[in-house]
Amino acid sequence: MQVAILAIGTELLIGQTINTNAAWMGEKLTQLGVTITESLAIADDKELIISSINRLSHNADYLFITGGLGPTKDDITKNAIASYLGVEMYFDEPTYNKIVEYFTAMNLSLSHLHKEQCYFPLGTKLLTNNMGTAPGMLFETPNCNIISMPGVPYEMQSIFTESVTTLLEQDDRRIPYYQQTIRTVGIAESKLADFIEPIIETMPANLDVAYLPSLGSVKVRLSGTGLDAKIKVEQIVPQLVEALKPYVYGFNDLTIAEAVQNTMIDQGLALGTAESCTGGYLGHLITSTPGSSKYYNGGVLAYSNAIKMNLLNVKEETLEDHGAVSEQTVREMVKGCIKLLDVDIAIAISGIAGPSGGSEAKPVGTIWIAVGNAETQLIKKFNLKKNRLINIRYSSNAALIMLRKFLMAD
Amino acid sequence: MQVAILAIGTELLIGQTINTNAAWMGEKLTQLGVTITESLAIADDKELIISSINRLSHNADYLFITGGLGPTKDDITKNAIASYLGVEMYFDEPTYNKIVEYFTAMNLSLSHLHKEQCYFPLGTKLLTNNMGTAPGMLFETPNCNIISMPGVPYEMQSIFTESVTTLLEQDDRRIPYYQQTIRTVGIAESKLADFIEPIIETMPANLDVAYLPSLGSVKVRLSGTGLDAKIKVEQIVPQLVEALKPYVYGFNDLTIAEAVQNTMIDQGLALGTAESCTGGYLGHLITSTPGSSKYYNGGVLAYSNAIKMNLLNVKEETLEDHGAVSEQTVREMVKGCIKLLDVDIAIAISGIAGPSGGSEAKPVGTIWIAVGNAETQLIKKFNLKKNRLINIRYSSNAALIMLRKFLMAD
Repeated sequence: MQVAILAIGTELLIGQTINTNAAWMGEKLTQLGVTITESLAIADDKELIISSINRLSHNADYLFITGGLGPTKDDITKNAIASYLGVEMYFDEPTYNKIVEYFTAMNLSLSHLHKEQCYFPLGTKLLTNNMGTAPGMLFETPNCNIISMPGVPYEMQSIFTESVTTLLEQDDRRIPYYQQTIRTVGIAESKLADFIEPIIETMPANLDVAYLPSLGSVKVRLSGTGLDAKIKVEQIVPQLVEALKPYVYGFNDLTIAEAVQNTMIDQGLALGTAESCTGGYLGHLITSTPGSSKYYNGGVLAYSNAIKMNLLNVKEETLEDHGAVSEQTVREMVKGCIKLLDVDIAIAISGIAGPSGGSEAKPVGTIWIAVGNAETQLIKKFNLKKNRLINIRYSSNAALIMLRKFLMAD
Repeated sequence: MQVAILAIGTELLIGQTINTNAAWMGEKLTQLGVTITESLAIADDKELIISSINRLSHNADYLFITGGLGPTKDDITKNAIASYLGVEMYFDEPTYNKIVEYFTAMNLSLSHLHKEQCYFPLGTKLLTNNMGTAPGMLFETPNCNIISMPGVPYEMQSIFTESVTTLLEQDDRRIPYYQQTIRTVGIAESKLADFIEPIIETMPANLDVAYLPSLGSVKVRLSGTGLDAKIKVEQIVPQLVEALKPYVYGFNDLTIAEAVQNTMIDQGLALGTAESCTGGYLGHLITSTPGSSKYYNGGVLAYSNAIKMNLLNVKEETLEDHGAVSEQTVREMVKGCIKLLDVDIAIAISGIAGPSGGSEAKPVGTIWIAVGNAETQLIKKFNLKKNRLINIRYSSNAALIMLRKFLMAD
């Protein structure tokens, strides 16, 4: 069964909004055994919307449309769908009553635009939106089920989870799909491919391998379609893992943060962080995982040298002799952090994220990371590319990879 | 002049990777006066790549392709382009020599896959990639210039900035485009539209307005095409700002973090943060802005109650009587943070991000935020939706909005 995704909104094309909805739906649809053939984003242009619906719905069993359902004038999806279907609009009293009820309860005043939100193309099956005022819509056409949802991510996600999933689960045209992803660190894509090539070459034709590099790690995705997909994928994966053993840290959606969380909790260890240039992003990576409070006590964002000295006990001479971005400083930050926060292991990061603050000896992108306990520290210097956000993300990620290495060596 | 974007990679369709390249290029292309009509993502499928190139290149003056140029087997873009153009592949010696040189200098060993990376369709004009081993490619066909770049964001960005920009700047088919975005907080999209409707209705036809809501703020984008676009947009924007005065905090790319940074630096104030449930994300929002070290001293990630008590001086009775998620706790966190970090103003956040940890009295999404100096604090309780990451992002953003409010009232 094939589906297409159509995202409507000039903001997506001019780069004001990143199309995260397509990725979110892509993941859910793949898990449901549905193949996404195309994911298209177009501007708020009625004629373009109509021609795109026309083209995509002729090549797909389902077409998922997001965007263009809000209360304001730039939202024209509904009218375009009505034109495409050749039907009139009607006013839906129950939808309006629900909005009135909600606004009264919240003590908010209604705008006349909310009334316009309650017009729908004739024949619409409404899908409940528990997170906002614009319901989802289902249109059953002879070739294709067209589903239109708001572009606000949590509203779309709510409608998808409550209504769309059930609809798809009842559709027996789905083709079994199965995938597993092996997550690796510390090995380049090309090297990794060399290692597993002999295995890949013997794979049956209904299996497929893909390499997904990002920020110091490479994911290897093995996927298959058909009734034997699960059996075949599960046969090959252990062979790949064997070939890549020292580099594999986990599977599927397991992040590095989750992998170290599992190990830390297993070993009953408490973690603390001392961040300078990453300014909280390392803490964020750690605490994005539910349950992180079981091992993560907290951290210090030592953005100023005063905090490095007063809270983390970094010596003034160290800062003067070696600078805040140095092996000596991150080593002292680790030791100070362990004492201050009463933890077993600490991570310290100090560097020059950029764009300014660099020198010839320490250019932008020079970042020192230390991970360890009171006795031993693993320390590494990174020379990264010159983009502030990439430097922040890359080094926070690298710190977790180093923590994993430290825990393995222990 | 019209262009289309084609992103190749199954990982984009199944949701393993979010297509940030399209947004990045969209922004640059729009600024260059180029209209993006479609942005399409498709799977690593040779036939589909060929048919998509065929369709898109017939409706566009430029087609930008990203993805599918890495060293591994799932990368088939080059072969698909060669088939589409009806040309053979050739081996490019200079490209191979560069790779050998780089790997020798870095003391890395070459894979035979790097040799395969040096084959290109005959007639390719190579575009230098300073960030990786796969160069960009330009194909001049009678109707359309096709440009193919790697999918790794910083490699694509490097090629685009170094080569593509110059190419486009020399193209006189570009149509002048101008936009300004007004950034607001504290007002709903529908209300905002009501306020400015009278102005919008009198606008010339070559102007367009769009509303972009996200996490407690709404952006209003006014755009125009044609020779008088800039003049017209600059005539209307002050009228819109006047109508929305109390809600406007800035323009265009200025984030809330940048807006408060400007005010804090102007007033010579130092900021500290004390985060519990947001775990560093607030610090990250603040330090994502270059120059934040001029006013931001740092923070404490007080994930455990012990840190709240020992470092931030929150009283044990407060935690026992009111809980860590309470007005009293965030008030004491602000006061403790100001003292500990020697700052003028502090922000404190404590809440239940979820998915677990909620109770009937304090469900998941209950978040208390305090902003203030040693004397006065602005304190607010939020009841958010039940998704951990959204709760973290929303409340970090809300904290900055509250800081702005506090600074305005001062």
